[in-house]
Amino acid sequence: MSERLEKLFCPDSVAVVGASNGFDKLGYHVMKSLIQGKYGGEIFPVNPKGEIVWGLHSYPSLRDIRGTIDLAVIVVPASLVPQVLHECGQKMVKGVVLITAGFREIEDQKGVVLEREIRNIADQYALPILGPNTFGFVNPTFEINASFTSELSLLEKGGVALVSQSGGIAHLCGFLATEQRIGFSKLIGLGNRCNVDFAEVLGYLVERDKATKVIALYLEGLDRPREMVEAAKSLRGTKPIIAYKAGKGEKSDSASRFHTGSLAGNYRIWRGAFRQAGILEVSSIEELLDTAKVLDSCPPPGGPRIAVLSSQAGPGMVASDAIEKSGLKLSHFTARTQDRINSLLPPIAMRTNPVDMGPAWYSPQDILDLFEAVLEDEGTDGIIFMAMYASANENLANEIAQYVKRVDFLGKPVVACLSAPREIWNDAITGIDKRKGFAVLPTPERSVVAMGNLWRVKLIVDNGG
Amino acid sequence: MSERLEKLFCPDSVAVVGASNGFDKLGYHVMKSLIQGKYGGEIFPVNPKGEIVWGLHSYPSLRDIRGTIDLAVIVVPASLVPQVLHECGQKMVKGVVLITAGFREIEDQKGVVLEREIRNIADQYALPILGPNTFGFVNPTFEINASFTSELSLLEKGGVALVSQSGGIAHLCGFLATEQRIGFSKLIGLGNRCNVDFAEVLGYLVERDKATKVIALYLEGLDRPREMVEAAKSLRGTKPIIAYKAGKGEKSDSASRFHTGSLAGNYRIWRGAFRQAGILEVSSIEELLDTAKVLDSCPPPGGPRIAVLSSQAGPGMVASDAIEKSGLKLSHFTARTQDRINSLLPPIAMRTNPVDMGPAWYSPQDILDLFEAVLEDEGTDGIIFMAMYASANENLANEIAQYVKRVDFLGKPVVACLSAPREIWNDAITGIDKRKGFAVLPTPERSVVAMGNLWRVKLIVDNGG
Repeated sequence: MSERLEKLFCPDSVAVVGASNGFDKLGYHVMKSLIQGKYGGEIFPVNPKGEIVWGLHSYPSLRDIRGTIDLAVIVVPASLVPQVLHECGQKMVKGVVLITAGFREIEDQKGVVLEREIRNIADQYALPILGPNTFGFVNPTFEINASFTSELSLLEKGGVALVSQSGGIAHLCGFLATEQRIGFSKLIGLGNRCNVDFAEVLGYLVERDKATKVIALYLEGLDRPREMVEAAKSLRGTKPIIAYKAGKGEKSDSASRFHTGSLAGNYRIWRGAFRQAGILEVSSIEELLDTAKVLDSCPPPGGPRIAVLSSQAGPGMVASDAIEKSGLKLSHFTARTQDRINSLLPPIAMRTNPVDMGPAWYSPQDILDLFEAVLEDEGTDGIIFMAMYASANENLANEIAQYVKRVDFLGKPVVACLSAPREIWNDAITGIDKRKGFAVLPTPERSVVAMGNLWRVKLIVDNGG
Repeated sequence: MSERLEKLFCPDSVAVVGASNGFDKLGYHVMKSLIQGKYGGEIFPVNPKGEIVWGLHSYPSLRDIRGTIDLAVIVVPASLVPQVLHECGQKMVKGVVLITAGFREIEDQKGVVLEREIRNIADQYALPILGPNTFGFVNPTFEINASFTSELSLLEKGGVALVSQSGGIAHLCGFLATEQRIGFSKLIGLGNRCNVDFAEVLGYLVERDKATKVIALYLEGLDRPREMVEAAKSLRGTKPIIAYKAGKGEKSDSASRFHTGSLAGNYRIWRGAFRQAGILEVSSIEELLDTAKVLDSCPPPGGPRIAVLSSQAGPGMVASDAIEKSGLKLSHFTARTQDRINSLLPPIAMRTNPVDMGPAWYSPQDILDLFEAVLEDEGTDGIIFMAMYASANENLANEIAQYVKRVDFLGKPVVACLSAPREIWNDAITGIDKRKGFAVLPTPERSVVAMGNLWRVKLIVDNGG
């Protein structure tokens, strides 16, 4: 089933129905996204006026296009959509992104009727529709931005597929991800899920999309929750799936109906379903992104025993507190490891876990030796590595980045909370982030929470594998 | 008592004892901070070689300087500190920043002895010492960066005074604050608190420092916790004090002893003390900064009834969930307000609280009218305003920024979660942030948590006022 999404997400040609030169039209912004996002396939603007659109010859209708169309992005008014879908079917279009809103998400019964109509048309031609009422999708791997937001092309390539029921949340995640250097394989807005729902997309991402390593879901409410849960269950043990569920309270539940036409449903039932399905639930948007980044970058820990290596004692204490309440444990170093640490640090600092690396701070080699001693420690399954760089530490920051370039994949997860003035950051910190088993996050607490989730996902995968 | 800190934090002249031209010396970086931070007073580098340091004539010792020295920043080895302090006393220096480490924070008993010695010398001359074992301080209001990290001069001016027991945490907060546009009146590292402790600094910030509107504390453990609590109690109802306490667990507690020479102590006792003292405790570094920003930017809400205005339904649901668990309530609009909203929004979107402003998204005036209707609503005490801008919304983003320029102070707190591609961000979002009662935070959840803390601080101030 999921193979029918192949050409939707990786099309060799795209028609934009409603393409426009007017800044206030969504058809303008879809064209901008495709062109400025450097989409490599053929683009066919469709516009009744037949004028030049974004420098390209346009066509009055889909019928007038010669050659194959894999994907049609539709931004015409709702009333015109049925006709356009018929043309898509006749033209053997392989997939549709239906950005147009005004279907079952509106209060007026006409919306429900119209959505039923387009669904029937889609069924007739076996045409998968992403949407309606979606912003579209971005596939950084394939270098296509099929959305109305051209800046989403700034997303880095990576292994995270985010599937969102809300365009607003997808945008928020996209912008946060760009700032925090989270690499995406897909950013998908499901909208009203006319005939492409979570279950099918999950199947596609797990079974057919090699670029995707982690799946992050933003859910509100579903018409067929069981279908999604069953799909996730059948995929359990393959790729990690994490989810953030909105509509937990009474008020936001009823808000959901207006938004995407589905009640959010009883939250307790959802929690049970996630557990059954092997989906790790997280409790904030930031936690969803942080966890996805760490899952994409780090190997799973062999156990919950974590070492804290900090350049300064304060962040070490904060991380230790977070570990004690996160389901992880501070590791006990073996005697051999402790000897190595003691030979590198004078007895003026905390040398057991958490380790205050402060006194070695001006000797990059000692810091690296400390790191390796703890990495090799048999009692340690993962490392929280923390450094708040001052300008005096620029050499050290660069030495650590060089080390990461040099070494092989670490084998244990290292979540690093590195903070620095912007000029140091750019060179030294991006050189470490998402490489060889390292992932950089902004605070000690968020680093520990993400490490805890990495461990929980390992338990889920082990139980389901 | 606290008046003796006046010239320490606002000195007309500064001597740097241990000033250096060598990049690997802290005395180099302190000079860089003062000079590149555009400190306007006189700078006297002190260096035994008497060479030109950072382009300035240097002096072999403090005794060789003619004229008054308000502040001495000391970065010489620990063993030389007693002699330098005697010179400070004789020279009538008004305050000292003692960056040098190697005192009671080290395991060796010599450190304790040496710290006792310098404390006695300081008492003899009534000389306040910030430190030892501190990174220094930054006073953006007075434009002095008396720390070894020149990039801390990038801190924006504002009303937040952060007093930290850890230099690492102070650096982390400083770097995060620069990215998130939090304005500081002071960033102070207390280090070992030889003779200047939280209590005295609190007194100074509340009673003498007009620039400070909010005080944020990072605490590990104190020798004289009662003193701090009593000081806060006596200041209750003046300026809000919020605190993050590390060393909650067993492990991090014992780590604290190594760090600043004090046990962190039983966390439950601390919680009670904070409550008594009217200090709002927060549970993460980010929450400390977010709450400080909102307290600095927004008026207190008259009650816990919050309206959620969102450009997209998803973020509105997330915020509603957060409100239901934060001690706040979703407000009920009066009939008049609901009529105004209904006249601006078609019945296709959620028009009760949370309000989905989506359908009005292409009409800036309608969005502003919606905002004003809810701002004037008698049943609403504060607003969470959310917009995830796509490039198509650049005009709207700018219109909203223009509106904020035009209007008077709002009278009710508005915490705004605005996210956007960087090019929109720079103009439109910074034009709103920290103006007229608006504060911008990065996610719906963090916006709501900070609003909840704003309300809790209001309750504390009312009870103590």
